[in-house]
Amino acid sequence: MTVSKAATINAAKASRPARKEPADAAAESTALQLGELSEHLGYALKRAQLKIFEDFLRCVAPLQLTPAQFSVLMLLDKNPGRNQTEIANTLGILRPNFVAMLDGLESRDLCARIRSTNDRRSHILMLTDKGRAVLARAKKLVAAKHEARLNELLGPANRAALLAMLATIAKEF
Amino acid sequence: MTVSKAATINAAKASRPARKEPADAAAESTALQLGELSEHLGYALKRAQLKIFEDFLRCVAPLQLTPAQFSVLMLLDKNPGRNQTEIANTLGILRPNFVAMLDGLESRDLCARIRSTNDRRSHILMLTDKGRAVLARAKKLVAAKHEARLNELLGPANRAALLAMLATIAKEF
Repeated sequence: MTVSKAATINAAKASRPARKEPADAAAESTALQLGELSEHLGYALKRAQLKIFEDFLRCVAPLQLTPAQFSVLMLLDKNPGRNQTEIANTLGILRPNFVAMLDGLESRDLCARIRSTNDRRSHILMLTDKGRAVLARAKKLVAAKHEARLNELLGPANRAALLAMLATIAKEF
Repeated sequence: MTVSKAATINAAKASRPARKEPADAAAESTALQLGELSEHLGYALKRAQLKIFEDFLRCVAPLQLTPAQFSVLMLLDKNPGRNQTEIANTLGILRPNFVAMLDGLESRDLCARIRSTNDRRSHILMLTDKGRAVLARAKKLVAAKHEARLNELLGPANRAALLAMLATIAKEF
């Protein structure tokens, strides 16, 4: 899929000089005008985020993990023994959505909910051995396919600058 | 709301030098470690996008418009007489979601669906006079509150660089 997509991009790039041919001109005249919308950061962020999520899903397709599920596994791995509320709040996931996501991960034996001995109302979350193994494979796929291609597209310096600006928005806006 | 949020940010900034006091150290020890997650562009994009959408909703609260509804009104204004499929495809909105959104906008008399005279199966979309007036007010609120604050946070040059990188991802990734 990556190959055919790259081929499409290259074909599109190669055809650029020929854009003024009648067929291309007709295609352009039917394209919609985004106008000021393309200057809105929220719109640009959402479009880029959708593209990145689509590519992420393709890259980890053998493991059937969504970006949100991947984030949960990463966080559980780094913070074993934390409770549901802490994980959900850290990721900014609403409680009902988070409970549904945990049901899915637990049914696939990727994580386990254990009743806290300190607070019987609270559930501690842990990765299972299978969860750790799936996460390790996912991290390799994401690094080798997804993040590597992003790095190639933007260049390392731009990628770092982009990451820093996004972190500033998330923290301070 | 903007003022109180800015005050919170300033308070947080002012307290930074005091971070090593016992109370702050305790708060830090309970914070979860994001680890490598913070290096993932998809994660950073999603967090920034959620923050920007929250602020957008606050800024246009008097008009009760979501970012997606705002995008649709902007696009209809710039491209009158286009059909449902063209608008939905341009914005990358799935058809069932788009139909539900149009139902909402039409019930509020912000846009109208008119059966195409060329193709009776297709619906042409138009802004109503009320839709145009609401869009004009929304654009003013977004420019004066939302985009102006983003500009202030990032600086105009960084904001332009961010927008360009997001457009590259949306187009070429």
